[in-house]
Amino acid sequence: MPEKSNDPHKTSWIPVPQNSDFPIQNIPFGVFLTRDDVITIGTRIGDQAIDLGALHQLGYFKDIPLTDDIFLQDTLNDFISDGKKTWRLVRNRISEIFDSGNPELQGNKEHQKIVLFTMDEVEMQLPVQIGDYTDFYSSKEHATNVGKMFRDPENALLPNWLHIPVGYHGRSSTIIPSGTPIRRPMGQTLPKGSTSPVYGASKMVDFELEMAFITTDANIMGEPIPIEEAEDYIFGLVLFNDWSARDMQKWEYVPLGPFLAKNFASSISPWIVTLDALTPFRVPSPAQDPEPLPYLQQKGDKSYDIHLEVAITPDKGEPTTVTRSNFRHMYWTMAQQLTHHTVNGCKVNSGDMMGSGTISGATPDSYGSMLELAWQGTQPITLSNGELRKSINDLDTVTLKGFCEKDGLRIGFGEVSTKLLPALTTE
Amino acid sequence: MPEKSNDPHKTSWIPVPQNSDFPIQNIPFGVFLTRDDVITIGTRIGDQAIDLGALHQLGYFKDIPLTDDIFLQDTLNDFISDGKKTWRLVRNRISEIFDSGNPELQGNKEHQKIVLFTMDEVEMQLPVQIGDYTDFYSSKEHATNVGKMFRDPENALLPNWLHIPVGYHGRSSTIIPSGTPIRRPMGQTLPKGSTSPVYGASKMVDFELEMAFITTDANIMGEPIPIEEAEDYIFGLVLFNDWSARDMQKWEYVPLGPFLAKNFASSISPWIVTLDALTPFRVPSPAQDPEPLPYLQQKGDKSYDIHLEVAITPDKGEPTTVTRSNFRHMYWTMAQQLTHHTVNGCKVNSGDMMGSGTISGATPDSYGSMLELAWQGTQPITLSNGELRKSINDLDTVTLKGFCEKDGLRIGFGEVSTKLLPALTTE
Repeated sequence: MPEKSNDPHKTSWIPVPQNSDFPIQNIPFGVFLTRDDVITIGTRIGDQAIDLGALHQLGYFKDIPLTDDIFLQDTLNDFISDGKKTWRLVRNRISEIFDSGNPELQGNKEHQKIVLFTMDEVEMQLPVQIGDYTDFYSSKEHATNVGKMFRDPENALLPNWLHIPVGYHGRSSTIIPSGTPIRRPMGQTLPKGSTSPVYGASKMVDFELEMAFITTDANIMGEPIPIEEAEDYIFGLVLFNDWSARDMQKWEYVPLGPFLAKNFASSISPWIVTLDALTPFRVPSPAQDPEPLPYLQQKGDKSYDIHLEVAITPDKGEPTTVTRSNFRHMYWTMAQQLTHHTVNGCKVNSGDMMGSGTISGATPDSYGSMLELAWQGTQPITLSNGELRKSINDLDTVTLKGFCEKDGLRIGFGEVSTKLLPALTTE
Repeated sequence: MPEKSNDPHKTSWIPVPQNSDFPIQNIPFGVFLTRDDVITIGTRIGDQAIDLGALHQLGYFKDIPLTDDIFLQDTLNDFISDGKKTWRLVRNRISEIFDSGNPELQGNKEHQKIVLFTMDEVEMQLPVQIGDYTDFYSSKEHATNVGKMFRDPENALLPNWLHIPVGYHGRSSTIIPSGTPIRRPMGQTLPKGSTSPVYGASKMVDFELEMAFITTDANIMGEPIPIEEAEDYIFGLVLFNDWSARDMQKWEYVPLGPFLAKNFASSISPWIVTLDALTPFRVPSPAQDPEPLPYLQQKGDKSYDIHLEVAITPDKGEPTTVTRSNFRHMYWTMAQQLTHHTVNGCKVNSGDMMGSGTISGATPDSYGSMLELAWQGTQPITLSNGELRKSINDLDTVTLKGFCEKDGLRIGFGEVSTKLLPALTTE
């Protein structure tokens, strides 16, 4: 019953600014530190953060079977473990509590003082403890662009790409929330024309415009998730910046894949937007030719129309939007990714995170990385202050934004914004 | 001061069978379920499991700064977080308590009833919650063999291999302790001569003979671990069987590395043997030519002389040892692996696990996988019952064992033993 919460005509008694990503139809989940230094699970309407731990203690969820401390935790993992039915009950109840026609909390100023914070009073945290993190590679345009640059322009897509949602494992320990600065990584690169690598700071730090989904406990080890059930195990989505050091990647990645070129940092937006909130924005998936093997064949609208953009902001400068893309471009859907991931019995747990891979569109202004936008450095991007960029400079801030919009309803993800600090000078 | 605990002449009042892997000089750490259904952290001498949670409650560790519940946990992560100084104090105290000359516990039958179990009374668990798992590829012989088979026999080693301890991220959720059976995985493979993949059970399930080390919290994100400090962050080692489906691997692994071919299961031995226990078995590392970059240059004996072997036991049959190798063969050391892993600032936490990669020796009878032993199926292995094997059959049990031996002292790892069940018949 997500439909009631998704009613586009519904309004909240909490004011929602024009073009906000967080109307009452969104109800994302996150974890924040309050002004009282308490960690709690919360949601957001407009520019108000809502303390779900406090709301639950005050009895607002008494008709839903929840443990007493389910929201008084520093991660969403246990709540996500409770499963889709519980997520929906809680989401619908929040929608009810904050409905402009409901006096329960609206008329109780004392309770409001306890549960409501302005966004500048809270500090967003990583919303889940990420057990395992997998990154897919599911944009045909991105895989083709990379294949053209790094391998054979005539055979840019590898033979397995149209049959497999190609993916690989990444590092959970360095996934950080928006606002946490990162350092330019040190490492090995191979200078052009040389056969001996050198040690130093990466000279080609890049972003990758991705989204990532968060799973619940899905299967027992050894058993697959059928594709028609796959979306039931997806709690929601965040924006995902898969930071990459292209020069290190080029030297290290054959034959076992990217490693240090990726695992120095990945940044996510702190609010998890549920699949239920995204239901109005479902769209058909791109045609797949050749037809996938039966275990990957899906029915219904399994893609999502999510507008995405990336801006670069130089130190003390103004942001320049360098690309606009859309999540619907992805060739392989989340359902296909999750089903493929478990076809061999691989176990998926609550809090696992799966990145989409770089989301590149068909046109050069919709590519999802500087590698593609500046085409390996041959076509630098011009920022609004006139500076050129082939990759990310020290003290640049990279900001990803994403939102859905349809029939006057806008559901968004906020942003993930990350500043690149200079390398440690330990050379 | 690990030396006192390592004194080869020391004996325990607990009987230690001839050729036991667990004399009083070992003192490994593990987690087990007792006959009373209690989970506790413990150690082992001879065939006795020792409940450290109970020992601590009885006051035997009162002179060591430890929290009250440090051993009453279902993982070793918090104890490992306490750091090397604490591990040594605890290890030395255990050595003292069980010294044949010490009457403290030896003379207290009531206490013994509480803290001692025979090994068949306990059920060993996964000893740590593994945050991130990385697998290296550090045997020159293995990398050369694989390069000869899968790529170019004339240029078997890739250009980066002699400069980088090549590694990649793996899946934590499917790492299981010895004794847990696994299922033959389903998935995609490409039939010979075809351009279209098929779905079905893997026809080439293989073991990989590896060891894995477990880390403590080592660095803050963005900062590297210098090589001279790296071993301080290694708690200990286990035997590691990196199960692999070769036919799936071949089809999926280019360009991002192995994924479903590996993440269906990896098995470990349940007792973590500390680096302190292994100190008497340190040996010089193999010469490295070319010289590694300065950040990877190490001093002292950083390799370990650990004898390894693998046996295959068919259903209702006898074991056949199919290979004998040694951990000292590894080209890159654990210190180099850990330092390389963090040179870019990648954060390492307590409970992270890092596999060595397949440990192959120089001779064909010391190769660490069926892929190499049967040379891609061209030279099948003969078992003691006359059966041939190119890979692992349904209902075969694969058992890895490992031990050090020197001057009459034997320190071992026990075993990791895993039965392969047939695939789920969902075709």
